[in-house]
Amino acid sequence: MRCLFIIMTLFISALQAQTELIASDELVLAGELRDAALKDGTGYEILESLTTEVGPRMGGSPGDAKAVIWAKKKFESLGFDRVITEPVNFPKWDRLNESARVISPFPQNLTITALGGSIATPEGGLTAKVVEFSTLAELMEVPDNSLNGAIAYISNRMERTRDGSGYGPAVAARSGGANAAASKGASAVLIRSIGTDSDRLPHTGMMRYVDDITKIPAAALSNPDADLLSSMLRRTDEVTLNLLLSVGFVGKATSYNVIGDIVGTERPEEYIVIGGHLDSWDLGTGAVDDGAGCAITMAAATLIKQSGLKPKRTIRVVLYANEEQGLYGARAYHEAHKAEMKRHIIGAESDFGAGRVYRFSSRVKPGALGAIDQINQVLAPLGISRGDNNAGGGPDLIPMRAAGMAVATLHQDGTDYFDLHHTANDTLDKVDPEALKQNIAAYAVFAYLSAQHPGDFGFDLGLENQQEN
Amino acid sequence: MRCLFIIMTLFISALQAQTELIASDELVLAGELRDAALKDGTGYEILESLTTEVGPRMGGSPGDAKAVIWAKKKFESLGFDRVITEPVNFPKWDRLNESARVISPFPQNLTITALGGSIATPEGGLTAKVVEFSTLAELMEVPDNSLNGAIAYISNRMERTRDGSGYGPAVAARSGGANAAASKGASAVLIRSIGTDSDRLPHTGMMRYVDDITKIPAAALSNPDADLLSSMLRRTDEVTLNLLLSVGFVGKATSYNVIGDIVGTERPEEYIVIGGHLDSWDLGTGAVDDGAGCAITMAAATLIKQSGLKPKRTIRVVLYANEEQGLYGARAYHEAHKAEMKRHIIGAESDFGAGRVYRFSSRVKPGALGAIDQINQVLAPLGISRGDNNAGGGPDLIPMRAAGMAVATLHQDGTDYFDLHHTANDTLDKVDPEALKQNIAAYAVFAYLSAQHPGDFGFDLGLENQQEN
Repeated sequence: MRCLFIIMTLFISALQAQTELIASDELVLAGELRDAALKDGTGYEILESLTTEVGPRMGGSPGDAKAVIWAKKKFESLGFDRVITEPVNFPKWDRLNESARVISPFPQNLTITALGGSIATPEGGLTAKVVEFSTLAELMEVPDNSLNGAIAYISNRMERTRDGSGYGPAVAARSGGANAAASKGASAVLIRSIGTDSDRLPHTGMMRYVDDITKIPAAALSNPDADLLSSMLRRTDEVTLNLLLSVGFVGKATSYNVIGDIVGTERPEEYIVIGGHLDSWDLGTGAVDDGAGCAITMAAATLIKQSGLKPKRTIRVVLYANEEQGLYGARAYHEAHKAEMKRHIIGAESDFGAGRVYRFSSRVKPGALGAIDQINQVLAPLGISRGDNNAGGGPDLIPMRAAGMAVATLHQDGTDYFDLHHTANDTLDKVDPEALKQNIAAYAVFAYLSAQHPGDFGFDLGLENQQEN
Repeated sequence: MRCLFIIMTLFISALQAQTELIASDELVLAGELRDAALKDGTGYEILESLTTEVGPRMGGSPGDAKAVIWAKKKFESLGFDRVITEPVNFPKWDRLNESARVISPFPQNLTITALGGSIATPEGGLTAKVVEFSTLAELMEVPDNSLNGAIAYISNRMERTRDGSGYGPAVAARSGGANAAASKGASAVLIRSIGTDSDRLPHTGMMRYVDDITKIPAAALSNPDADLLSSMLRRTDEVTLNLLLSVGFVGKATSYNVIGDIVGTERPEEYIVIGGHLDSWDLGTGAVDDGAGCAITMAAATLIKQSGLKPKRTIRVVLYANEEQGLYGARAYHEAHKAEMKRHIIGAESDFGAGRVYRFSSRVKPGALGAIDQINQVLAPLGISRGDNNAGGGPDLIPMRAAGMAVATLHQDGTDYFDLHHTANDTLDKVDPEALKQNIAAYAVFAYLSAQHPGDFGFDLGLENQQEN
């Protein structure tokens, strides 16, 4: 009899493990939360405040320090239960001045910006012949040391897609162009901006030197300027250009991850981790990258709190420091919370602008797919379809996902994202307040229902594919 | 009998005067010319050449001098029968450096550009409180000398329309804002760019000081920066800004109107005057303003010549010098050709970008309306409708129209024109090659049929309305 009882219990547990579901009344409450979010202006107010009162906030800059103070105060004024700052250290990179000019045969100024991490040119700039390569691969095919001090120019254009899939193939020229060019004997590398617009505003973004290759200056031309340079090079191989970059690393800096918690009522030590990154590049006001992600997730948690709902787990909003220059905040967060990683139940970062969410994908254990489907039911009226179970979760979740944390991605329409990404044009006017509300509704539903899910979403899935999204 | 003959002759002349029409076989030839133009890439090649090999060409700049040489050579290589340059003198204005920064309470750089004609600020810039006015009219209502050295900021936004009618009401703040602000005691004037875009690229353009009012520096904020400054001013009246303009008039310059003629076979001393202006602002490469107008009209005349057609009157393409800073080339042309003004039969300037032509309007004597209707028949397959008889003709025709010359306007779709106008974004990539061909087809038809029209289009109409279009 006792044996039968044990068997029965095991059987029921196994069944529950496979079918653990969120209570249906919670789904109703989440639906009300969603509808309330669509009428609430909190997210846009947060974003307007950040872009107006702080503006550009490159890691380690005075704006970054102001942003940390702003975030702390904002969490407090929004009524978060707990606000935490955690230090993040990184090398400080600075941009003082930059310009480019075709010297001959068709003198014209070109609009460029230094890539993040680039070294400076000599004072007065570097003057050399330009040699064009249609792709990074083409540059890599020429013999070593054959460029004789020329400026290597990589001219391929990024493709526009909804899911941002054009970024990966194009961005290799930004990350690795300098190394490839240096190994071929170039004195500098110029790339066509990794962007889909045709505005005379170049796209910055990080590049990295590898050991054992000479460091050379690296910059991006705006798309119209890249067209122009290519037009000149169709006429003649003898285009001489002066490139001046007054940029570089200058010591170390400390910034902070700023964390706001809505403390759970039943399992306060378990975290549902949403957020964005607080830093931006220096050229724009960081409205879409990633002020929007900060505003969306701060507003989503605020709405849950203000609605009077009682999340069982803690909903944690992490505003990561210095994502742009190498996930410094994300790595620091993971390091600081390593011991409690298994209490990080599931995470999702908003870091793909302010376009509408159109798909919801997950990376959870099979037994949690039922709960994910339930969450998806509540998301569906927002125009969100169910994606696969191979979600990336967002760049700042890479360290935690690698450690085994379950993640979800609320995929945003990124059709226009790379028009603005890392440019001066990343400003508040590009954000549609209604699309922002839809994002907030989706994050509120996701965070609340994840907090109410009686089971977990699985840890240490051991999945091999660590794809980032 | 002799008396009857005279009466009959007079009667026939009167009838002819009322019904003078273009021969129907010419209409057929013009239709073939139109269709050939739609397949011809000459216009785009001209524009690509100008923007690549010359680029920015502000009146009096080295680029302007290069443009004159370019234009002369281009007319020659295109096979024009006669190429003429005529000197144009004007004061030279230069732009060396410009910046703006909110000093407190929310330090941020703002993207601005000096308005053409502005004086410089003191070295190191001018630092003052900002006072916002929603319109120029609102600024003009405050008491004289009440601004106590503040920077007056005029924030109204230009409206987007197809015909560019939003420009007139908005541009008054650019032309006259400094005078209004100075009379109220301001130390400088900042305006929201006269433009319809939301790009972080400010719009320059001419402003003018009037006598007896203190000259103060004048600049335009990009639209996103204007939004930002207004957001700050909604929070506090105490926004302090540093404005630095290193600009100003520096002596005199000489440029040239460059004229290309396809000489008429029967009435070579009579001119059909098409063209655009050769100068541009310094920020972009002047692709749409007014490289397009130059390319359209140069290509249209070239096509007529190359097609083997024999225009009876001379088709004259005038590339006017320094339109932007005050119609200097237009006034010099009129002055130089005053004695032969009555042999300037009809004119049309292309100076509204590169959008498709959608309407054809005229300003001719009543007896020439029949011929205008015939021209319109050949234009109609291009999607061009008949407009009224109150055409402007284009800015560089103002002096000749004022002197009585008949004019026509081939109205271009300007929906996007003021996104680019006078900004760094005025580059070749903004030009649709197919739309350019449609423009060239329209100008070719207009110029050829005007040359073949047996009558004239009327001179000295004495119409009171000198509206510019």
